Amino acid sequence: MKIVTEAAERIKRLEVQGATNVALTAVKALVEQMDVSGADNRDSVLAELAKAKTILFKTRETEPFMRNAIIYIERTLRNSDLQTLEELRSLAQEVSDRLFEEFFQCRKRTAEIGSKRIRPGYRVLTHCHSSAVKMVFKEAVKNGTDFEVIITETRPKYQGRITARELVELGVKTTMIVDSAVRSFIKDTDLVLVGSDAITSEGNVINKIGSSQVALVAHEARIPFYVVTELLKFNPLTIYGDYETIEERDATEIWENAPEKLNIRNPAFDVIRRDYIHGIVCEEGIISPHSVTEVIRRRYPWVLEPLGILPS
Amino acid sequence: MKIVTEAAERIKRLEVQGATNVALTAVKALVEQMDVSGADNRDSVLAELAKAKTILFKTRETEPFMRNAIIYIERTLRNSDLQTLEELRSLAQEVSDRLFEEFFQCRKRTAEIGSKRIRPGYRVLTHCHSSAVKMVFKEAVKNGTDFEVIITETRPKYQGRITARELVELGVKTTMIVDSAVRSFIKDTDLVLVGSDAITSEGNVINKIGSSQVALVAHEARIPFYVVTELLKFNPLTIYGDYETIEERDATEIWENAPEKLNIRNPAFDVIRRDYIHGIVCEEGIISPHSVTEVIRRRYPWVLEPLGILPS
Amino acid sequence: MKIVTEAAERIKRLEVQGATNVALTAVKALVEQMDVSGADNRDSVLAELAKAKTILFKTRETEPFMRNAIIYIERTLRNSDLQTLEELRSLAQEVSDRLFEEFFQCRKRTAEIGSKRIRPGYRVLTHCHSSAVKMVFKEAVKNGTDFEVIITETRPKYQGRITARELVELGVKTTMIVDSAVRSFIKDTDLVLVGSDAITSEGNVINKIGSSQVALVAHEARIPFYVVTELLKFNPLTIYGDYETIEERDATEIWENAPEKLNIRNPAFDVIRRDYIHGIVCEEGIISPHSVTEVIRRRYPWVLEPLGILPS
Amino acid sequence: MKIVTEAAERIKRLEVQGATNVALTAVKALVEQMDVSGADNRDSVLAELAKAKTILFKTRETEPFMRNAIIYIERTLRNSDLQTLEELRSLAQEVSDRLFEEFFQCRKRTAEIGSKRIRPGYRVLTHCHSSAVKMVFKEAVKNGTDFEVIITETRPKYQGRITARELVELGVKTTMIVDSAVRSFIKDTDLVLVGSDAITSEGNVINKIGSSQVALVAHEARIPFYVVTELLKFNPLTIYGDYETIEERDATEIWENAPEKLNIRNPAFDVIRRDYIHGIVCEEGIISPHSVTEVIRRRYPWVLEPLGILPS
Amino acid sequence: MKIVTEAAERIKRLEVQGATNVALTAVKALVEQMDVSGADNRDSVLAELAKAKTILFKTRETEPFMRNAIIYIERTLRNSDLQTLEELRSLAQEVSDRLFEEFFQCRKRTAEIGSKRIRPGYRVLTHCHSSAVKMVFKEAVKNGTDFEVIITETRPKYQGRITARELVELGVKTTMIVDSAVRSFIKDTDLVLVGSDAITSEGNVINKIGSSQVALVAHEARIPFYVVTELLKFNPLTIYGDYETIEERDATEIWENAPEKLNIRNPAFDVIRRDYIHGIVCEEGIISPHSVTEVIRRRYPWVLEPLGILPS
Amino acid sequence: MKIVTEAAERIKRLEVQGATNVALTAVKALVEQMDVSGADNRDSVLAELAKAKTILFKTRETEPFMRNAIIYIERTLRNSDLQTLEELRSLAQEVSDRLFEEFFQCRKRTAEIGSKRIRPGYRVLTHCHSSAVKMVFKEAVKNGTDFEVIITETRPKYQGRITARELVELGVKTTMIVDSAVRSFIKDTDLVLVGSDAITSEGNVINKIGSSQVALVAHEARIPFYVVTELLKFNPLTIYGDYETIEERDATEIWENAPEKLNIRNPAFDVIRRDYIHGIVCEEGIISPHSVTEVIRRRYPWVLEPLGILPS
Repeated sequence: MKIVTEAAERIKRLEVQGATNVALTAVKALVEQMDVSGADNRDSVLAELAKAKTILFKTRETEPFMRNAIIYIERTLRNSDLQTLEELRSLAQEVSDRLFEEFFQCRKRTAEIGSKRIRPGYRVLTHCHSSAVKMVFKEAVKNGTDFEVIITETRPKYQGRITARELVELGVKTTMIVDSAVRSFIKDTDLVLVGSDAITSEGNVINKIGSSQVALVAHEARIPFYVVTELLKFNPLTIYGDYETIEERDATEIWENAPEKLNIRNPAFDVIRRDYIHGIVCEEGIISPHSVTEVIRRRYPWVLEPLGILPS
Repeated sequence: MKIVTEAAERIKRLEVQGATNVALTAVKALVEQMDVSGADNRDSVLAELAKAKTILFKTRETEPFMRNAIIYIERTLRNSDLQTLEELRSLAQEVSDRLFEEFFQCRKRTAEIGSKRIRPGYRVLTHCHSSAVKMVFKEAVKNGTDFEVIITETRPKYQGRITARELVELGVKTTMIVDSAVRSFIKDTDLVLVGSDAITSEGNVINKIGSSQVALVAHEARIPFYVVTELLKFNPLTIYGDYETIEERDATEIWENAPEKLNIRNPAFDVIRRDYIHGIVCEEGIISPHSVTEVIRRRYPWVLEPLGILPS
Repeated sequence: MKIVTEAAERIKRLEVQGATNVALTAVKALVEQMDVSGADNRDSVLAELAKAKTILFKTRETEPFMRNAIIYIERTLRNSDLQTLEELRSLAQEVSDRLFEEFFQCRKRTAEIGSKRIRPGYRVLTHCHSSAVKMVFKEAVKNGTDFEVIITETRPKYQGRITARELVELGVKTTMIVDSAVRSFIKDTDLVLVGSDAITSEGNVINKIGSSQVALVAHEARIPFYVVTELLKFNPLTIYGDYETIEERDATEIWENAPEKLNIRNPAFDVIRRDYIHGIVCEEGIISPHSVTEVIRRRYPWVLEPLGILPS
Repeated sequence: MKIVTEAAERIKRLEVQGATNVALTAVKALVEQMDVSGADNRDSVLAELAKAKTILFKTRETEPFMRNAIIYIERTLRNSDLQTLEELRSLAQEVSDRLFEEFFQCRKRTAEIGSKRIRPGYRVLTHCHSSAVKMVFKEAVKNGTDFEVIITETRPKYQGRITARELVELGVKTTMIVDSAVRSFIKDTDLVLVGSDAITSEGNVINKIGSSQVALVAHEARIPFYVVTELLKFNPLTIYGDYETIEERDATEIWENAPEKLNIRNPAFDVIRRDYIHGIVCEEGIISPHSVTEVIRRRYPWVLEPLGILPS
Repeated sequence: MKIVTEAAERIKRLEVQGATNVALTAVKALVEQMDVSGADNRDSVLAELAKAKTILFKTRETEPFMRNAIIYIERTLRNSDLQTLEELRSLAQEVSDRLFEEFFQCRKRTAEIGSKRIRPGYRVLTHCHSSAVKMVFKEAVKNGTDFEVIITETRPKYQGRITARELVELGVKTTMIVDSAVRSFIKDTDLVLVGSDAITSEGNVINKIGSSQVALVAHEARIPFYVVTELLKFNPLTIYGDYETIEERDATEIWENAPEKLNIRNPAFDVIRRDYIHGIVCEEGIISPHSVTEVIRRRYPWVLEPLGILPS
Repeated sequence: MKIVTEAAERIKRLEVQGATNVALTAVKALVEQMDVSGADNRDSVLAELAKAKTILFKTRETEPFMRNAIIYIERTLRNSDLQTLEELRSLAQEVSDRLFEEFFQCRKRTAEIGSKRIRPGYRVLTHCHSSAVKMVFKEAVKNGTDFEVIITETRPKYQGRITARELVELGVKTTMIVDSAVRSFIKDTDLVLVGSDAITSEGNVINKIGSSQVALVAHEARIPFYVVTELLKFNPLTIYGDYETIEERDATEIWENAPEKLNIRNPAFDVIRRDYIHGIVCEEGIISPHSVTEVIRRRYPWVLEPLGILPS
């Protein structure tokens, strides 16, 4: 399990970041581990796969896209009647290639759809750095749409600065503000776009800390608020009653030389209330957050399968 | 129709209470009535069944689970091509057994799902006495979760006292308040759980009088509010435009020796607005109230069948 | 201090009820105690008065009208330069007579004003039993206005039954509901009137438990909600930062034979949010709850005096 | 293309009005144009059809029912393997007949469902003139329900007058008010019913200018607000990110002899926020606006087909 | 009483319009009537005055400025100890001159204050025709502020057209919309200004029908909403419990040739909820609507005097 | 004018910070400048004073306490009939001493009042660094109240760190979070306390950027939100229509090495909506924000005097 273990370590130490990169790294390790496997029959291949899954799942408290991808591969192999390591390894490669290919097509489609929401002259506010939102902006630039962006700095890791640099490079007129200033600028805003780290069965969206405040502020001022995301960010455990775990990061991200007795809390995400979300922009188009679980059931039924929810 | 008529009387006189008991009693009578039937062909068996259905439907203004169960049995018999009383009677028994077995499995699953929403240290508020909610509490106790419950007394019939006794017996730290005190205790509450008497096609939930006020109070204070229910409580007539009938009970339940000229109104239920419901905890997991009709169509399509809505 | 002590006991044991009766009893005892006083100079008379005040203040956690009345009498005596017991006793009688006379005039005026809010054909909802609200209803009957009343039973002490009896005797068409049913009847309601136990400097109103839920329900449905009260219910300590103390009453009021391990909480009052109050109907007319402290300063400046707030 | 072009002109000049009439006219022209077609093979028939479609789509900025109807016919022809003009022409006739037949059945069913929401004694408020709402009223009259209607005049074209005349003729007690008076009459209203020009994938509804204000006013006062519509008004482009185009009409409709320098803006529609819609009354029954896209996918999957959204 | 009666007739027939003109006409008649009076002593002069007051009060259901002006004059005469007709007549002239002079100074001051709320580049929405709002616009033009106005047409009397003409003449870029389109344009609006017909003791404002909907729409979108008014529009009767009477005008204003059986309701005003008013712009500056009664008591104490509210 | 000019420079360069220090510095310079004045009569003394005022007013766009203090001193000198420099200088010293002495008494009183709102066991959230709030915390510690504090870091200047250090030194259990995390911690909060930079005539409060978001979040979750402030922070110009100017600070405070083309906006304050403020804790006690202007008129009438608002 060396390959898988090493990949897991890199994910744990945050050397790999972003839901997509994490999923790619994990799946790649999973498949490559099979190359050096000594398993000589179907059962032992599947047993090793299960072991690898357990190791990778433990890297992060919640990382739905990675989990959904691994579940998909494992399930396809189990459902096949292939017997040899070679056959199974080959199918694993094929399935993972197909999954990511479709994922990137989805992302492209999502960007096309999202870009149509940006009308000429719009000022779009965003928070943190989301590759899905960035692709929407790129597509809008490609469409020749004239628009501006307001970006929060996004404490504590200043991911807003990454977004700002990218937008300036794209030639988009960009304004940076502190996270606390969103309410002061919301009236000059026509649209809010944010990404997503996870989606729950109730239709709530987990995203970078501060997102839920931006959504509340937009709601108060009747400004449309959209989440741009791939649906594979859906966390199937939430339908089964589990809460999405909110990762808590190191205190030093907030204050390096804090007084000893000071308690520092650093949750990395918060939960955007579905009632404040106008629409989820995804590979299915623009949908209501309330319908997301039904869409998952129709489109990715295997995502819900491992739960053993009673069949109808 | 003696067996059916007697069962109907007992239901009417409230000797049988609770949606599940009512459905069990009605279905049992329906099947047992077939034992003493003189019907000698398929047509007359089905005609008797229809007659029994009419009698049982009249017992309560609305009792969706009983109605759905009877509809399911009648429909299965009609769809079969069985001809003799014996065959039909046997199928009726089999179908009703299967239905209730699945119902109890659903209930168990629902309790498991709901119990995960109760985090250690939570104070959960509930209203009235709901066997579905009670099972969630039992499951949480079984999980070893340390939690407390705030229970309203639930006038006029004081069903909160039944819940209180059960919880004390389960060893759960329990606090009782009058129905009017919910807003005073909501800040000390982490979660609200209530049961359901019926669900409408718009996603609203009918439950014991006072439930809609509890939901409003929870909404005002941003406290999560969940309905624990089996989906067979769905009333298919609401999709067809009918209002859920709210049973009005005897004035003496409120005041036995009231002044003669005093008008007393005693509706037994009220309607919880879907916008105040965070999720419906059911055999499908936790879902948005807005998606409930689509879930019914997918999972229990026969529930909607008798309506004759235009096929697609 | 025998007379005062006995009065204090009767108040403590709830033999005297209602803000007005409590104030009348306390002030009467205060004055009559002077008759049997052995004090032979101004200083000892005032010292006895202070002692009596302390005893009476301790009877209830908060009873603003009684407190304001006693403060008024003590202050008048202190501000006079009278020296003998006879003179001071006589002034005490005169002042207390004047205070209550004005109080009853205010109450009459308040009833006249409030009665104008009841238009012909109105259905007015009220909660608990308030003598101020009752006087409004009586005045409306006197005006010949045709109106109906919806009254909650008001658990745990069923004071709604007292209101119901009085209304039926007045010939008013009256409907009783349980406290939980307010939201079901609010659409058939044109106006809500409730009384007040205390008013805070922020403009919130303390009244019988459940009042704040009625206000919330009325607010949700855009139904006008008025508080009928005398301004001497204002609690001057709240301007100084104190919270209004909410009396907690005996558990047996809620359930006499409750299981031993069951915790029962029985707060007697709750706090109506000023934003849900359309107006305060008082001796000054109909005013905004936001302006109540300024009205007190203008009209009853002595109410605020003992606080020693910095003079301007 | 003479027949199609002439029909397109009549639609453009507003000689044909109402979503249903526009669709009927367009489809009829499409089919009749085939009669005079010189096309002698499948490919040229389909090419002509595509040309006709383009001409008809250009008549109005958005007219989802017409577009969906044309898309349906074209798709059926393309999916067939018929080769000759005669065969294709015949199929076109058959398909269009079936489509409209089903449409009128849907409308009838919708009226039946909607009429059940009108309880005896109800006052129903409506805005503008909607044939779907009118059919609900007719059905309620047929049911013998005693109800009243409040109708806005609906500036600038006074379509409320058409509704008023029809209702008076139906014998319904009807009251007309100016559009600005809705908030003054909402308390006397039990139900609001409006029609629909288009439905978006997020569940918002586009309807005559002013509808969104009526919805907001109803929401503020907790009055149920329903949209009566056929689901074929769904605009599939919105799921793909497009905004529904709001037609802007001539300034003279508002003021014929306006001062020269005065700017006049005359949008014909506005967008009703899904959160203010209690239910959509349609051929599927009463559904939540949040589930409308899922219903379309299940019931009219071909509506979404041309978008090329990624298949699952 | 000929002069007074004739003035009253002109007011009743709406030949005199606008609160200020009505007050001017009424007071002028009152004073001129004294010229032809045969009264030869103080008592008979005052008796005639009372009679004139009654005639003038009856012209309109509510016209607070006229009423306050007449009350002021009558009160000043009564409070003087003048004895002869000449002396009293002279005082009446003097008082009425002073009152109106101060009124016009207030109006000028109000315009200056209000104009500062219009920032360069602002788009200001207004409803109907208000001379107070018009003066604010004129002052802003005088200040050299570059701003635009959105004006509703204001059915049924199209007073928005008067405003539009005036603004165009002032050189202000102006856009007219129908009353129903306010919600569609509120996002492009920076500020809403409306006038006032009456102010109540609770802080609500009565203004042209539709104003309360504009306020609600502005509130939903967090757009500042101000009322520009002189405080003498305060209706003192409201503090005493009276409702402001809403004048109902002729049905033909809405539809001249309406079907016979059609009921038409034409209330001329509605009530703007104080919670939707950011500030009242008046001669005292910008104040909270909640404090308006206290301001009246301080600034115009005689307005409240005739009510006989209990003195403190 | 050397002394005044130097003080003005230090204020401008932010070497002097905090409303109180700024006022103290400005007034001290004003008085000391008189020592070196060559003015030899009343008129030239007052002329110099006016010049000094102008210099000091220009240092900051808005600093109401400093402005009110200077206005008070100038006004007292003008209202006196003193003639010589010595006499006027002496009065200036006396008046300024009295003003600040009273100010510090107010602050102490405010702290006492505010500390009573902190109940044992409370968790209090605050934002930025406010000396008024700090004094409340100190007083609560002195009272022996056991409480915790949640403090935001307050970007861009991290003033939350100052607050955190002070609290830790006071022995208060303190938790720091990023500004974006307020909504995640509001449920664990019992009370919010913030300071104030300025108060407007409408009752809104200007405070450190982010305060208005904290208020909105508290409002959404029904958590009490109080502003602790001295009333001399009232900005009298707002009553006259002026907007409070929001200072915009240097971009480098947010990002030192930002990309060249990136626009950075750095407003230092935002406006807390009065509807989200439960009470203003000040030297008058706890008052509604709606009544603040009336309180100023009564307590500090000279604050409004220079405006020349029409006298009543």
